[in-house]
Amino acid sequence: MTLANPVSRADETFLVLKVGGSLVSDKRRARNIDTAVLERYAKLVADLAVEHPGRMVFVAGGGAFGHGAVRDLDENDPLAALVLTEATFAVKWAWTTALRDNGVRAMPLQLAATCLLDADRAVLQPGVLRRALDKGILPVLSGDSLLTDDGDLRVFGSDRVPGIVLGQVSTPIRIVTLTDVPGVLTGGPGSDDVLPYIDPDLPEAAFAHLWDNSAWDTSGSMGGKIHELTEFARRGAECLILRGTPDVASLRFLLSPVAEWPADISYTRIARSEERDR
Amino acid sequence: MTLANPVSRADETFLVLKVGGSLVSDKRRARNIDTAVLERYAKLVADLAVEHPGRMVFVAGGGAFGHGAVRDLDENDPLAALVLTEATFAVKWAWTTALRDNGVRAMPLQLAATCLLDADRAVLQPGVLRRALDKGILPVLSGDSLLTDDGDLRVFGSDRVPGIVLGQVSTPIRIVTLTDVPGVLTGGPGSDDVLPYIDPDLPEAAFAHLWDNSAWDTSGSMGGKIHELTEFARRGAECLILRGTPDVASLRFLLSPVAEWPADISYTRIARSEERDR
Repeated sequence: MTLANPVSRADETFLVLKVGGSLVSDKRRARNIDTAVLERYAKLVADLAVEHPGRMVFVAGGGAFGHGAVRDLDENDPLAALVLTEATFAVKWAWTTALRDNGVRAMPLQLAATCLLDADRAVLQPGVLRRALDKGILPVLSGDSLLTDDGDLRVFGSDRVPGIVLGQVSTPIRIVTLTDVPGVLTGGPGSDDVLPYIDPDLPEAAFAHLWDNSAWDTSGSMGGKIHELTEFARRGAECLILRGTPDVASLRFLLSPVAEWPADISYTRIARSEERDR
Repeated sequence: MTLANPVSRADETFLVLKVGGSLVSDKRRARNIDTAVLERYAKLVADLAVEHPGRMVFVAGGGAFGHGAVRDLDENDPLAALVLTEATFAVKWAWTTALRDNGVRAMPLQLAATCLLDADRAVLQPGVLRRALDKGILPVLSGDSLLTDDGDLRVFGSDRVPGIVLGQVSTPIRIVTLTDVPGVLTGGPGSDDVLPYIDPDLPEAAFAHLWDNSAWDTSGSMGGKIHELTEFARRGAECLILRGTPDVASLRFLLSPVAEWPADISYTRIARSEERDR
């Protein structure tokens, strides 16, 4: 642990960092990963993970692998979504390799092997995840196909994965999603105007806003992200959506209070209002 | 379920079937799998699995993938064995795909994501495995690298995997290992004389026998198999080692009492003596 760059809340906050698949993958090309860009992100993530051992989980978006796998599933095969477990394992392995090359004790976990879906709610068997964290290992997670109580496999997208950490750690949880837009857009297509705050108890306002401004279309799966993140925020997490770029010098600001972030960082923050100045 | 070929103990016995990596893979060639041979075995395994839904687990030997992965591990890296989790995932996926092509509801599970190693004993988080079996899904398992209570990853070979099922099912468990020899050889190199029975409470006799006849050398990892299988037998399982071949018409005899097996099948049986005529 270096003391050269002290982070005021590093010791108390648990960080779930998701890097969107679109940042390292061209979803139009089958099983595409831009290894060079992924390695640049991996260096930034490694810098965080080494600073914050046992206090962080990494979630890899599925990108071309994930979307390609589930695009044409056979509706008559209740286990058809199984292809996602292979596709996202490949993605996790690419990240794990790059993170380990940068000194991180990283370990990929197949969510389908450790998580069930009961009434559409993920139920984690926490033993391996907890021990990994106890031992300072960075769990590398992703979306997967989870076994339901009906005996089917259902797609469980990477936007939902941070939720499995809730309830597993006792300290404040910050969930950061790096994606290809700087937050929830309000200015319509082509604009970079960002909604700075969403009250998770009034998410309808944010959704209406999105629709009014047609931002839904330009931000792709932003609607799904807001749906999940508002739920996580109602369960106590502080959630942030911001644009990822491999060009930054460091991502350590993600461990600091938002008020201390660099002024040029745009983001949408979703958290209970009383926790706004946390 | 067909009644054309009734199997007297099919309803009561739980079958753990391991197909040795040497049967479908040339261990001298990196990441080698003989897909054509694997598909022939998969047809035979599928025939069993469809007949015996929810009453069977499949264990894939690592073969060239597994052995290649762990051959030159960095002793200074406590997570070095992690490469095995990727290598054996690839093997599980090859089997899963072939089994699904033959009508089996099969699902690969990364053991490292659902199993810990406490004082060198595997501790399974059983939720996903149990639900899979409840829903008639065939779990496809393999060796892996498991997280120890020291925070290291340790190689957990496929010969040890059947043990995780012990304690998870209440009915008699039969563990069958298909390998490249017809059992424990007693006649020395080149011979096919097979030791028909090993008392798990007197395994030293079998080991001494192996050494005396130099069969250890010709049977490769037979010593390790006996070590594990005698332990499983002491915990109540009935264990059988026999030669695998894709040329047989069916493997359904594996669900029958040994006394009813075809006369030309050689095997070594390891079980508590009082259970010999089970």
